[in-house]
Amino acid sequence: MDRIKARTLSGFMELLPGPQMQMERITEIIRSSYALYGFTPLDTPLIEASEILLAKGGGETEKQIYRFTKGDADLSLRFDLTVPLAKYVALHYNELAFPFKRYQIGKVYRGERAQRGRFREFYQADIDVIGDGQLDIANDAEIPAIIYTVFSRLGLKRFQIRINNRKVLNGFYAMLGLTDKSGDIMRTVDKLEKIGADGVRAVLVDDFSIDGRKADDILRFTAIHGTNDEVLAALAGYRGKNALFDEGLDELGTVAKYLGGFGVPQENFAVDLTIARGLDYYTGTVYETTLLDHPEIGSVCSGGRYDNLAEYYTDRQLPGVGISIGLTRLFYVLGEQGMLNPDGLTAPADALILPMTDDLSAAVALATELRSRGLRAQLYTEAKKFKAKMSYADKLGVPFVLFLGEDEIKDGVVSCKNMVTGEQEKLPPAAAAERIAAQIDERKRVAPVLDV
Amino acid sequence: MDRIKARTLSGFMELLPGPQMQMERITEIIRSSYALYGFTPLDTPLIEASEILLAKGGGETEKQIYRFTKGDADLSLRFDLTVPLAKYVALHYNELAFPFKRYQIGKVYRGERAQRGRFREFYQADIDVIGDGQLDIANDAEIPAIIYTVFSRLGLKRFQIRINNRKVLNGFYAMLGLTDKSGDIMRTVDKLEKIGADGVRAVLVDDFSIDGRKADDILRFTAIHGTNDEVLAALAGYRGKNALFDEGLDELGTVAKYLGGFGVPQENFAVDLTIARGLDYYTGTVYETTLLDHPEIGSVCSGGRYDNLAEYYTDRQLPGVGISIGLTRLFYVLGEQGMLNPDGLTAPADALILPMTDDLSAAVALATELRSRGLRAQLYTEAKKFKAKMSYADKLGVPFVLFLGEDEIKDGVVSCKNMVTGEQEKLPPAAAAERIAAQIDERKRVAPVLDV
Repeated sequence: MDRIKARTLSGFMELLPGPQMQMERITEIIRSSYALYGFTPLDTPLIEASEILLAKGGGETEKQIYRFTKGDADLSLRFDLTVPLAKYVALHYNELAFPFKRYQIGKVYRGERAQRGRFREFYQADIDVIGDGQLDIANDAEIPAIIYTVFSRLGLKRFQIRINNRKVLNGFYAMLGLTDKSGDIMRTVDKLEKIGADGVRAVLVDDFSIDGRKADDILRFTAIHGTNDEVLAALAGYRGKNALFDEGLDELGTVAKYLGGFGVPQENFAVDLTIARGLDYYTGTVYETTLLDHPEIGSVCSGGRYDNLAEYYTDRQLPGVGISIGLTRLFYVLGEQGMLNPDGLTAPADALILPMTDDLSAAVALATELRSRGLRAQLYTEAKKFKAKMSYADKLGVPFVLFLGEDEIKDGVVSCKNMVTGEQEKLPPAAAAERIAAQIDERKRVAPVLDV
Repeated sequence: MDRIKARTLSGFMELLPGPQMQMERITEIIRSSYALYGFTPLDTPLIEASEILLAKGGGETEKQIYRFTKGDADLSLRFDLTVPLAKYVALHYNELAFPFKRYQIGKVYRGERAQRGRFREFYQADIDVIGDGQLDIANDAEIPAIIYTVFSRLGLKRFQIRINNRKVLNGFYAMLGLTDKSGDIMRTVDKLEKIGADGVRAVLVDDFSIDGRKADDILRFTAIHGTNDEVLAALAGYRGKNALFDEGLDELGTVAKYLGGFGVPQENFAVDLTIARGLDYYTGTVYETTLLDHPEIGSVCSGGRYDNLAEYYTDRQLPGVGISIGLTRLFYVLGEQGMLNPDGLTAPADALILPMTDDLSAAVALATELRSRGLRAQLYTEAKKFKAKMSYADKLGVPFVLFLGEDEIKDGVVSCKNMVTGEQEKLPPAAAAERIAAQIDERKRVAPVLDV
């Protein structure tokens, strides 16, 4: 027979069992954290009608989207979880309670140029709060507080959630009479880290014909830094000149104040005037999250406030605020940086049971005992030599191997080998289960990420 | 602005929050059960190169597949989880330990004609055990034992896992000299329930030119029924005429014997000679699972033994045995039959916290206390009238509402309202958390499926 070479498409992450277990644990921590804050899980189709996904249209999205026809249907794979949410809320508006708080962890598709660390299929892990007509600013503070919880539970320590407010930026540009150029300015200032202050000034003056003095004002504004209180105090100096600015500053101050109340330590968030987010979608608070020791990888969790979630599908005003963890990319980066904790459980089982008799009933009873305590027990039933069985246990990396031979069965015990220490002892099944459970519970508490 | 009508594609399940929570619970029970048996989770791409997915080619698959091009790549959405597993095992053979036990719960795509209860995007929840060169028959018994555990934990009682062996069937047809017609015979016998014995006989004789006496032999064979021991005893009468038959009967007997040992009660499995599975893929044990009170919906969980998982990608002999729960369809059917338990938790939160003061710090502290105990607490921060807040709590269906006004904060208590009983009392935060935890733990033990 002619064989076809097995391969996985480039840009598509496919993990071996060990890393997959690490990924599962990270996903589960994100999921359970989102759930603890009272967000409801959603699961929407990966395929939508193209007219729905491309309602906004234009730009990179349209080029990157996976679009195809099936019969006479024009279909596309979702490229984010926000547009499907907008459709969902517009479609099911009457059956939902507002504020509608949902989380969704799912794959999205973007046909980007393939390169290392860039994925065409990747997980996003989103939370959004959608209001009906209005939505309190306290939500803008709870969102980063949830991300703080998630990142802390993952084991991350050296991260910072950076916060800004688009009204502050737009209000300031309005003061300079540059409202019509605000998009260009934001996108230019976004490159500050990359091209430096002189570079930004040159682009503003040369490419966008902005007066040199105004360009300097912009750079001076962007350069404001310090503690959160210092930044807010410096911004207060611009008060009273533009209503939008004042409103944005009130919001920013409230969010910063609440964030402390929500239990986020000062070192994990910063008011940062250089954060703008590329998308014109955002209208108020904006977030980016950086790993302090790895600024080169950019933001791993971003989002913000928007005035109108579903304007393409409904007349209703549905303001919202949300944030998205780029999960596949985060996992990839943590792996590249050596930050995935090898001490976590990555074996498919907590114990491998090796029956040494033809009759499996004692082994099955033992497996049942372990499973009833929530321990993952794999029964090995292949007729192989002892050495092959132990080599299998080694390859799986199981923490415990349990032998059940005729002697053990006669004595009502099991030989329990700790594969880490090499210790082996005979114990009654219940005692063995207890011994294993104690150690597994300890290893379950190991955070999946190492961040010194 | 011109609005686009929000819609979800037909054949794509999209659930409201309540049903979605029920679906999540069912999925989690399947996932955790699979994991307890030492199966490792896998997550493979939804998109594969078309040449990979269509390596076998032909038939319904090719018509139903979602296939498209992106750039110069010929891509397809997976239509099951078995072909991606075959590719995975062939590709990563050197890094895997055999027997390789994996579970995967994921969406698959088939462009079937849209009709009620038929889905184009649906979840399958699969387990497979893959051997390297050989695989012990005990695995054929553990697979249905796992399904028994899953279904029991879901709350299902009136179900039966039906088992047969293709070698028994093929051996029997060989005795009649009908080996070249075995596929036609199996597909015809598969219709027994639909067209009756006379109908089957007519098709065998008229369409496939099978001698009338042989057709009667086939029907007599297929009609063998009774307890598992009775069926096996009747089959023993055919022994010694065909080596394949004898081998299959040995396997069937061993699987039936082990199944009892694995703790599956007699009433939940049956040796059933009418089960053949349409696919020519299976070579030994085959499974179907029916809900006894709903035979009309057909099998909700099927699978079997195959000799050669990855023959299109590798020369290696990789025998396996697996089973698949058609999760989306099962969920749909349970809903249609009124079998989804309304007493399970479907609210997004265990408690809704209503702060009655501008300062949220006491409310945040309370939420933190609840969350640290694993309780899902939603903080309500909208400036709405009391009635609107209570109506929100009702709509979410939260079991508890916690009020925090100035009086409560002063006294160090919280007003805790049980939304089921209507009872309300003031308690210190820790006592309130304990009270809620006790009730939530009880409701978490409620099985998601009702089966009288």
